[in-house]
Amino acid sequence: MVTLRPIFLVNGLMLATLGLTMLIPALLDAVVGNKDWEVFLAGAFLTGFVGAGLVLSSRGGQRAINQRQAFLLTTSSWLVLPAFGALPFAFSALDLSYGDSFFEAMSGLTTTGSTVIVGLDRAPPGILIWRAILQWLGGIGIVVTAIAILPMLRIGGMQLFRMESADQSEKILPRAAQISGVIGAIYLGLTALCVLAYWLAGMNGFEAVAHAMTTIATGGFSTSDASFGHFDSAWIDYSAAVFMVIGSLPFLLYFQLLRGRPLALWRDSQVRGFLVLLFAALGMIIGYRVLSGQGAFDQVLRETVFNVTSILTGTGYSTADYGGWGDFVVVVFLFIMFVGGCAGSTSCGIKIFRFQVLLATLRVQLALLLRPHGVTIARFNREPIPEPVMHAVTSFFFVFAASFAVLAVALSAQGLDTMTAISGAATALANVGPGLGEVIGPAGSFAELPQSAKWTLAFGMLLGRLELFTVLVLFTPAFWRA
Amino acid sequence: MVTLRPIFLVNGLMLATLGLTMLIPALLDAVVGNKDWEVFLAGAFLTGFVGAGLVLSSRGGQRAINQRQAFLLTTSSWLVLPAFGALPFAFSALDLSYGDSFFEAMSGLTTTGSTVIVGLDRAPPGILIWRAILQWLGGIGIVVTAIAILPMLRIGGMQLFRMESADQSEKILPRAAQISGVIGAIYLGLTALCVLAYWLAGMNGFEAVAHAMTTIATGGFSTSDASFGHFDSAWIDYSAAVFMVIGSLPFLLYFQLLRGRPLALWRDSQVRGFLVLLFAALGMIIGYRVLSGQGAFDQVLRETVFNVTSILTGTGYSTADYGGWGDFVVVVFLFIMFVGGCAGSTSCGIKIFRFQVLLATLRVQLALLLRPHGVTIARFNREPIPEPVMHAVTSFFFVFAASFAVLAVALSAQGLDTMTAISGAATALANVGPGLGEVIGPAGSFAELPQSAKWTLAFGMLLGRLELFTVLVLFTPAFWRA
Repeated sequence: MVTLRPIFLVNGLMLATLGLTMLIPALLDAVVGNKDWEVFLAGAFLTGFVGAGLVLSSRGGQRAINQRQAFLLTTSSWLVLPAFGALPFAFSALDLSYGDSFFEAMSGLTTTGSTVIVGLDRAPPGILIWRAILQWLGGIGIVVTAIAILPMLRIGGMQLFRMESADQSEKILPRAAQISGVIGAIYLGLTALCVLAYWLAGMNGFEAVAHAMTTIATGGFSTSDASFGHFDSAWIDYSAAVFMVIGSLPFLLYFQLLRGRPLALWRDSQVRGFLVLLFAALGMIIGYRVLSGQGAFDQVLRETVFNVTSILTGTGYSTADYGGWGDFVVVVFLFIMFVGGCAGSTSCGIKIFRFQVLLATLRVQLALLLRPHGVTIARFNREPIPEPVMHAVTSFFFVFAASFAVLAVALSAQGLDTMTAISGAATALANVGPGLGEVIGPAGSFAELPQSAKWTLAFGMLLGRLELFTVLVLFTPAFWRA
Repeated sequence: MVTLRPIFLVNGLMLATLGLTMLIPALLDAVVGNKDWEVFLAGAFLTGFVGAGLVLSSRGGQRAINQRQAFLLTTSSWLVLPAFGALPFAFSALDLSYGDSFFEAMSGLTTTGSTVIVGLDRAPPGILIWRAILQWLGGIGIVVTAIAILPMLRIGGMQLFRMESADQSEKILPRAAQISGVIGAIYLGLTALCVLAYWLAGMNGFEAVAHAMTTIATGGFSTSDASFGHFDSAWIDYSAAVFMVIGSLPFLLYFQLLRGRPLALWRDSQVRGFLVLLFAALGMIIGYRVLSGQGAFDQVLRETVFNVTSILTGTGYSTADYGGWGDFVVVVFLFIMFVGGCAGSTSCGIKIFRFQVLLATLRVQLALLLRPHGVTIARFNREPIPEPVMHAVTSFFFVFAASFAVLAVALSAQGLDTMTAISGAATALANVGPGLGEVIGPAGSFAELPQSAKWTLAFGMLLGRLELFTVLVLFTPAFWRA
C-alpha cells in the first residue's frame, strides 16, 4: 500500500501557496477597478481552504517518502495544481467552461503555452498576470523536479544528472526544498534581468513583467492575441530570443557560473549540442527563406531567429504565421518541435542529452557491426554512459514516439484534421504551444477544438512535462500491488 | 582493405541471372507481336554481358567472405540489380528517363510498389511481367537475405533469428545457397497457389500470374492503373488479402509446417502479434467507417480488409481512394505504414518482432522504476532477450525515426508539399508503395515528382529494405579503414 499522508501534505502546501499567489491578480484587478478581483479572491479562498485542510489533516508522521510516493506525489501535484489554478478562469467573465479553464491552467503550469482564450488584448490584467504566474510557477517547478526528483526516480536516463552517489529516496523532500532555494534565487534573478531587457526595449512595465515570466519559463503565454507580433520591435524580438535560450539551458550550470566556474556552461555537452542544433536550424531556414525570396534579409533574419528559437525551446511565442513560410519550413518545424532544450531547464521535448545518448549508442552499434568483439564506449559529457542509462533513454524515445502516435490517432478520432491532429499531439507532448496548420497554427487558436480533444491534449501535456514514465508507471498493476 | 573479387563474382552471377530472366518478357512480347521484345533482348544482352564479364574476371580465389565483404555485397547487389533491371524500362516505348526507370526497378526489387508509369492498362505484357518479375525476385531475395545474411551480420537485432550457434561469416555464401533452395521451393509453391486462387476468382491467366508474383512478394505492382479496383471482385479481393498475409509471415515457419510441425506457426510470437495488430486495425477502421456511414457493411468490410491489409503488409495495392475515408483513417494509415510484417518474410517496415522487443524492454524499464534492484527479464518467443539484441533493436528504432525525419525534410526541400513529403518518406522507408495525399496517394502517381525526389525516394527504399544498418555502416570511416 502507498501511504497517502505525505502526498496530501505536500499537495496541501502547494495548494495553499497557489491560493496565496491568487491574491496578486486579485490586488491588481482591484487597483485598476476591474470586477474580476472578486473572482481571484474566491479562487484564493477555495484553493487556500482546501490546501490548508489537506495540510492540517495530514500533519505529523514521518516526512521521508519512498519511491512510489514520490511518483504519486509528482503526478498528483501536476494534476491538483491545474485543477485549482483553473478556478479563476472558470469564475471569470471570460465565459470559459471548466474544461477550457483546466486546459488553460495545464497549458500554463506545464509551460506549454497553447491557449483557448481569444481576445487577450481586451482581457483584464488579473487574468493576464495569472496566466504568466502559472507558467512562471510551472517553470521553477519543473526545474526543481528535474534536478531533485527525476534523477532519483531514474526517469528516462535522468539519473545521469544525479548530483551525488547517494540514492536515498527518503531524502527527496529535504533535497528538493534545499535546491528550490538556490535555483529559485537564480530563476528570480534571470526573470528580473528579462523584465529589464523588455522594459528597456520598449514594453511597458506590466507587459515586461508578464512576458519575462513566460519567457524564462519557456512558456509562451502572451498578453496579446498577436503574441510578440503585437510589439513589432526588433529589440524586443532579439531580447526574447536570448532569454528563451537562457531558459533552455541547464539551470545548475548558472549556479556553477555564480560559483566562479564560467567555463562550466561552455564545456557542457548539452549546451553545445543545443546551440549547434539551434544555429543549424537557423542557418537552414534563413537560407531557404532568402533563396525563395521571402523578404529582405534583415526581416527574414529577425522573424526566423525569433520563431525558430520559440519552437525549438518549446516556448511558443510567434511574430509571424510561419505556416506560410513554405512546406519545407513546416516539415522542419514538425520535427524540431520534438527536440526541445536541455535537461534541468524549463524547456521540454525529448531533450538534447537524450539525442546525444542515442547517437553515442548508435555509434557503438555501428562499431560493433564491424568488430563484434571489439569494445567501443559510449560517452556523454566525457564520461562513459552506464548501461541502465542507455536502456532508459532508448526506451524513453520509443515511448515518446508511441505516445505521439496514440495521441495523434486519438485526436483524429475526435474529428480533428490530419495536420491538426499530428501537430497537436506533437505540440502537447513536447509542451511547445502552437501547432501547425490553419486551426491551431500560430494564427489560430485551440478554442474551437471539441472539449474532449482539449482533455486529450491536456493529458498529453502532463505526460510530456513529467517525462512520460512518471505518469505511465502509475498505470502498471505492479505499482498498486503490495 | 576490402577485397572486391568475391563481391564482383556474386554480383556478376546475379546480373547474369537477371539477364536471363529478361528473356521471359522478350519471349512474351515476341509471341504477342509487340516490338518491345527487342528492348528486352537488348537489356538481356547488356546485363548478361556485364554479368558474365564480372564472373569471368573474378573467378577463382576463395569463396569465403568476411563480415565487411558481406555488407558490401548485400548493398551493392541491391544497387547493381536495379541499375540493370531499369534498362528495359529506359529502352522501352514508355519514354521514361533513366532516373524514372531506376526508381521503378528499385521500387520493384525492394518490393515497394510505388510506380512512375501511368497507363498500365495499355502497356505491353512484357513490361507488365517484367515489373512482376522484379518484385518476385526482390521478394525471394529479401527472404534469403533476412534468413541467411542479416542474422549473421547482427543487423537491428536480427541475430534473434540465427539458426544455429555458429557465427562464422565464412559460411555466409554456402548457407545462403542452401537456404535459397528450400525457401525458393516454398516461395514457388505459394506463388502457384496464389495464381490458382486468382484464376479461380476470375482473373485471366496473365493477370493471375502477374498479380500472384507481386502479392506473395508483398510488392504491390499491378497490371492496371486502378490496381485491384480494376477487377471489382470480392473473391479476388479476399484472396489477395489472404496471400498478402501469407507473404508477411516468417517463411521458415512454412518449412516447419512442411516438416510436420503445423503448430509452429501459431506458437510464434511474431505471427500472433501480427495477426492481433491486423485485426485490431481492421476492427477500429471498420467500426469508424460504419459509424460514420461510409456505405453498406459488406462493402465497407471488403474495402477495409483489402486496403488495410495492403498497407500493413507493405504491399501497396488499392481498391479505393482511402484518402477519402476521413482524417482518422489517414492518421492511422500513416502510423501503421511503419509497422510492417514479420522478420524473414517478404514484407517490410520496422517489423513486428522489433515492437515486441521494444515493448518487452519497456516492461522491464517500468518494473525497474519500482524495484531498482529487482530482476525482470525481457522475453521474446518465450526466450530471454540477450542484451545486445535489445541494444540493436532500440538503436534500429531510433535510426528508423531519424532516417524518416531526414528523408521527409529532404523531400520537402525539393518542393513537395507537407503530406507528400511525410508520407513519401514513410512509404519509401517502409517499402509500402503508395503514399497519402493527392499527389502520391492511392489515386495519384509518383510520375509527377521532380527527378531529384525520385532518387531520394529510391535511396529511402534501399535503406529501408536492407534494414538501415547494412547500408549505413558503409558510410562510417571505420568501414574503409584497414
